[in-house]
Amino acid sequence: MKISYSPARPCAFEQVSHWDIETDVIVVGFGAAGACAAIEARASGAQVSVFEVAAAGGGSASWSGGEVYVGGSGGTDVQREHGFTDTTEDLQAYLMMAGGSAADAARVKVYAEQASQHFDWLRAQGVPFKGTYLPGKWIEPPTDDTLLWSGSEQAWPFNEQAKPAPRGHTVQFTGWGGGKVLMEVLCQRAIDAGAEVYYNTRALSLIADADRQVRGIVVRRDGKDTFVRARSGVILCAGGFICNTDMVKRFAPDAAECELPVTGGNDDGSGIRMGMSVGAATLNMHEFFATLPFFPPASLVKGIFVNEQGRRFINEDCYHGRVAHHVMRQPNQRAWLLVDNEIFGRPIIQEDIKVTAVGETWEEVESELGLPSGSLVHSVNEFNRYAETGEDPYLHKSQDWLRPLTEPPFAALSYCKGDYQGHAFTLGGLSTNPDGAVLDADGQPIVGLYAAGRTACGLPRWGEGYSSGLSLGDSTFFGRQAGKAASSRVS
Amino acid sequence: MKISYSPARPCAFEQVSHWDIETDVIVVGFGAAGACAAIEARASGAQVSVFEVAAAGGGSASWSGGEVYVGGSGGTDVQREHGFTDTTEDLQAYLMMAGGSAADAARVKVYAEQASQHFDWLRAQGVPFKGTYLPGKWIEPPTDDTLLWSGSEQAWPFNEQAKPAPRGHTVQFTGWGGGKVLMEVLCQRAIDAGAEVYYNTRALSLIADADRQVRGIVVRRDGKDTFVRARSGVILCAGGFICNTDMVKRFAPDAAECELPVTGGNDDGSGIRMGMSVGAATLNMHEFFATLPFFPPASLVKGIFVNEQGRRFINEDCYHGRVAHHVMRQPNQRAWLLVDNEIFGRPIIQEDIKVTAVGETWEEVESELGLPSGSLVHSVNEFNRYAETGEDPYLHKSQDWLRPLTEPPFAALSYCKGDYQGHAFTLGGLSTNPDGAVLDADGQPIVGLYAAGRTACGLPRWGEGYSSGLSLGDSTFFGRQAGKAASSRVS
Repeated sequence: MKISYSPARPCAFEQVSHWDIETDVIVVGFGAAGACAAIEARASGAQVSVFEVAAAGGGSASWSGGEVYVGGSGGTDVQREHGFTDTTEDLQAYLMMAGGSAADAARVKVYAEQASQHFDWLRAQGVPFKGTYLPGKWIEPPTDDTLLWSGSEQAWPFNEQAKPAPRGHTVQFTGWGGGKVLMEVLCQRAIDAGAEVYYNTRALSLIADADRQVRGIVVRRDGKDTFVRARSGVILCAGGFICNTDMVKRFAPDAAECELPVTGGNDDGSGIRMGMSVGAATLNMHEFFATLPFFPPASLVKGIFVNEQGRRFINEDCYHGRVAHHVMRQPNQRAWLLVDNEIFGRPIIQEDIKVTAVGETWEEVESELGLPSGSLVHSVNEFNRYAETGEDPYLHKSQDWLRPLTEPPFAALSYCKGDYQGHAFTLGGLSTNPDGAVLDADGQPIVGLYAAGRTACGLPRWGEGYSSGLSLGDSTFFGRQAGKAASSRVS
Repeated sequence: MKISYSPARPCAFEQVSHWDIETDVIVVGFGAAGACAAIEARASGAQVSVFEVAAAGGGSASWSGGEVYVGGSGGTDVQREHGFTDTTEDLQAYLMMAGGSAADAARVKVYAEQASQHFDWLRAQGVPFKGTYLPGKWIEPPTDDTLLWSGSEQAWPFNEQAKPAPRGHTVQFTGWGGGKVLMEVLCQRAIDAGAEVYYNTRALSLIADADRQVRGIVVRRDGKDTFVRARSGVILCAGGFICNTDMVKRFAPDAAECELPVTGGNDDGSGIRMGMSVGAATLNMHEFFATLPFFPPASLVKGIFVNEQGRRFINEDCYHGRVAHHVMRQPNQRAWLLVDNEIFGRPIIQEDIKVTAVGETWEEVESELGLPSGSLVHSVNEFNRYAETGEDPYLHKSQDWLRPLTEPPFAALSYCKGDYQGHAFTLGGLSTNPDGAVLDADGQPIVGLYAAGRTACGLPRWGEGYSSGLSLGDSTFFGRQAGKAASSRVS
């Protein structure tokens, strides 16, 4: 009988005639989740084999800015040193809002309670954090500083339910690219701890028995299908699916609007598909991180977005990814950022942003944009009238970013579909419990199978609630959890 | 070895020692999709066994209004008789919009091309349609008439991309409840055609072999687990999951806001879970139909909804379910329907609707609602100013429903969370091709497995795009498709 299998279709254990490799714990993918899973599995005494499709470790995390979203327990030492207290309750409240209606209370609780310790653990692995604080509003720090405001903490409605604190802790590296440093350290730690890493090796399929227990994987290595037995557990840390056009169209069609995938190149959804092949449930597959970095310069945050009805629709001081989701779903996907002469500057990430209208009066701008007569003018006047008094009763933009737009010339920067490029990665994935066990349609664990990072639906699971550092925080922490849990059957 | 199985975990074929029942085609669920699947499978020469958990057939369809969304091919004879032409292209364009960004072009095409013939087929089965036309705006016809406007056809933005035509074809029955007649006829037809129906029988699990082929099901009957072999195919027509609180919280948390499930009582998601157990992909699991029936009387459609910013947000003349989704996602889930004395009437489905504010001027209403000074007044003034000229440049409400709100007293009916009860059913389900074959994570068919109705993610897959009659149209048509396809291996 020919054995057939694919990521979407498990190989039957009963048909495997020999094992090429035998180990305790298999880790698929050597990114942030995989490296941390390997470190903890080794610490639990398991023999660990990591299979990485690329020629080197790091995954998409090594392309990131290296921000880790941590706090709680009164504050990390970096938060406290710079005068920020951060209770576990505030972190928990923030993370619940960040997850939206699909937030996972159990996962959030575990993370909020242990995030500060997790930060200490990352440093104990050798990940460098300078310990300094960078005030202001940034997408990624341009310096090698540590602590920054990396989400919507100070913005409505988040600031009403959780006391704001900066929680982005950035790996020491000057400029954008701290993720590379983070991953060099973590991968080396996993190797030093004794994890055996197979590069250039693609995971083809899970191996499951008639009782639906996961017993190993099939990998393609040196052109040959290779059967790998896991005596204790298989951990899927193979990233999300932003690189898989078919999956994006099928599961997260709105993400297809964003031309720029945020990825190291191997987020092909194979981990998620392998989980589904043995009956795993998936959660929030339609959700994705998206952004259109309309600042820096931060002065642009003082501008106001309007849609084709001339109306505002978002407090522009919330996280840029939250703004992006709101911009993308305006009628006919048309929106403009209105600025006056004082705050104007070209967005440094998209310097060639199209300026659709310029005028000495807002009436001129409205007319050039072809909006209903009086619509934009009314929105600007209302905004200005209240901004004078330091209020925004409509959209609750915070006082720091309120300034009447009264200094001509005025301009409208286009964030209409086609005029900007969106950045995106997927947030949906396998359903897991806080230990990383993959859950089936009834919420029961699939014996022998674990997942973490973007292969799982983790802490970050709602585009509108995303904050920088959530994905790395989630991947590293829950990767560790999975590494421990997957070692539980090591004798 | 003890055999273990559940809806989320298949029973291994290799472990089944005997068959209690053997048949060609198994149909799980005797609702709209199941009855039509059984009829077509019998017509294809298959031996057919239907397993229904309830004591009688009909499913949730028998609780519906009995509207079937059909048209195209120039129009059904009922459409044409009343002067409406309806091209296949217009139906197709409308259905693509109705599906939103996740619309399935192949499925829409097949349906648009064959919907008019499908209507003839329903009549050939004996389903009664009077053939008359009921003008006006209704949620369900209060008469025994046939043809009505049952969606957003005449409303923006639908009317810009598809020439409007009424497409709701309602089974003859005076008042709400045509679904009961529809299902009596279809179930009897299936029985007369020779389908063997087992009532009071719960499907427990699929039976799949090591090659992931579906070979039968386990059912609980007379307190005993009973093994049923399907020589050709298993069709899952077990409804959606609105009755399963755990699944709603996990997969469609926003639907949990709606207190009133639209169901015959057995939409427990078992069909979807059985599909997932053998590696089926699910689509749009977060989506759901929702409504808050704010009319009739239809005069209320001339009112305008505003949110806590005093702003309008939807053209109130679109389908009531589309309005509902927009109402439910306003900031803090607060919205009010503003009416004047001329159009006021108590909504007949929720007569005790809370009237939060009444005033002789709109300023009084705004103040009673505690909205930002000038906000509501501006919205009403803008609406009135343009309504005078028969225009709504902001939200494109059609001229028929535009009338200035100028006759005091004025009132605000509350559609804030807690003040209304939402109705809902789920729209997410198994991924299938237009023939009804269930697809895995790679989009490949799972041999021997089919699904239709709300167990599948069908034509209706986006709450904002729903139209009355889409679910029955989809269930009956794609139930037939699955019945044919599942019989393909009958020798």
